[in-house]
Amino acid sequence: MPPLRTALLQSSGRLGDTAENLKALEEAAERAARGGAGLLVTSEMFLTGYALDLQDIPGIAEPADGMSARAIGEIARRHGIAVLYGYPERAGDAVYNSAQLIGPDGAPLANYRKTHLFGCFEQDAFTPGDTPVVQAELNGLRIGIMICYDVEFPENVRAHALAGTDLLLVPTAQMHPFQFVAEQLVPVRAFENQMYIAYVNRTGPEGEFEFVGLSCLASPDGVTRTRAGRGEETVVGEVDPELLRASREANPYLRDRRPGLYASLV
Amino acid sequence: MPPLRTALLQSSGRLGDTAENLKALEEAAERAARGGAGLLVTSEMFLTGYALDLQDIPGIAEPADGMSARAIGEIARRHGIAVLYGYPERAGDAVYNSAQLIGPDGAPLANYRKTHLFGCFEQDAFTPGDTPVVQAELNGLRIGIMICYDVEFPENVRAHALAGTDLLLVPTAQMHPFQFVAEQLVPVRAFENQMYIAYVNRTGPEGEFEFVGLSCLASPDGVTRTRAGRGEETVVGEVDPELLRASREANPYLRDRRPGLYASLV
Repeated sequence: MPPLRTALLQSSGRLGDTAENLKALEEAAERAARGGAGLLVTSEMFLTGYALDLQDIPGIAEPADGMSARAIGEIARRHGIAVLYGYPERAGDAVYNSAQLIGPDGAPLANYRKTHLFGCFEQDAFTPGDTPVVQAELNGLRIGIMICYDVEFPENVRAHALAGTDLLLVPTAQMHPFQFVAEQLVPVRAFENQMYIAYVNRTGPEGEFEFVGLSCLASPDGVTRTRAGRGEETVVGEVDPELLRASREANPYLRDRRPGLYASLV
Repeated sequence: MPPLRTALLQSSGRLGDTAENLKALEEAAERAARGGAGLLVTSEMFLTGYALDLQDIPGIAEPADGMSARAIGEIARRHGIAVLYGYPERAGDAVYNSAQLIGPDGAPLANYRKTHLFGCFEQDAFTPGDTPVVQAELNGLRIGIMICYDVEFPENVRAHALAGTDLLLVPTAQMHPFQFVAEQLVPVRAFENQMYIAYVNRTGPEGEFEFVGLSCLASPDGVTRTRAGRGEETVVGEVDPELLRASREANPYLRDRRPGLYASLV
């Protein structure tokens, strides 16, 4: 199987302007597909922006099969590229902090609702999801999805490893002073779980937050394959099934686990 | 409470020569105590060396209350410093890869048997321990013990965090090409679990192995407080209860966990 070229769109888009962000997404998809990418990953809440006023969130949120989902399906299909986008999801009375994967044919493949909400803003704005592992198949790889703070809990990524995730997509809104997470923690998660992780951040100031960029694609051998700076930027890296296979053979973490000793974690 | 000054003795000692290694340990304890340290930590299997011939291990192994344990108790008492040392432990017919903590009064405080054995050599040489969390109190800190490969499993360190470990002592025999663990993984473990970790390695070639040094004291704020090079060296760092308290307040990982979602790990 050939490697999956993955484009990381490090951008905050425009706060509160879904139409403008859909336009930016289309441009990024066109550019990424032209560069040979089969997958484009955006940041957390890319569709609407992150630092929304609390009272505006229910109104700007959309269902997983809403208008923007259909528009992104069209974008994906038009350029023949899978797209993972972050957005506020309305479902009945609840609003989730979600990320949806759309296939290159425009069909939705998986929708994930953030399970570990960070800080007061998110806890006020969103209902936490209750499904820890959401996956889909793409180009022969098992793709997993989580969002930002989720990846900082080793339990969440381990659950993905045990469920066979090959490439974990993590849209994020990582802010100052937590750049340690982007720079150090994400590559360690990839190594200890023997998977690829695409961690895609927002940039610059937004409301009370200052996002740190530093998006990366980390591989299971502990190498950071590509790393963005602090500003708006798209970086591209390859997810190589053969590297994944060789690395797993050399690092038998999943085989050497002793689940009988981990009872205190649950 | 004042910080606990902790000395990391990065040394391989002399292979197969317990008497010589006790002498080196006494010199290190004297030096560390003179420099104000309250705790001296050695590498994995420091007492005997690591790359022993399989058939020699049962003979050189000692009980947890054997002659060397008593000698180290004397060293600790004489210099008024706690000592954590790695050694092969004989218990009945079994031999464990163990580490024992002796208090500054010379009394044994805790003995840990490595639960996650690395590779064929260790799996042939040792029986795995079955107690994941071993702790003791020292200077008002809760001290935990694990050995080398154990720390690479996020589950093990999380179990210590949940049991309140403040400072995790990790004697190791980390070898080429796994320096990623010393450089990157250990600081991430300290951060994600909000504890100090003292990771103390061997150095240089020994049998078929090439140890990478790079011992470190990592603090819960993601900072590496002290870091050794690749050769024989003692480095010293402070374990500060006030930093620990402030860092835990700023990083509420343990409070934000959702154990109900982690069932697949056990």
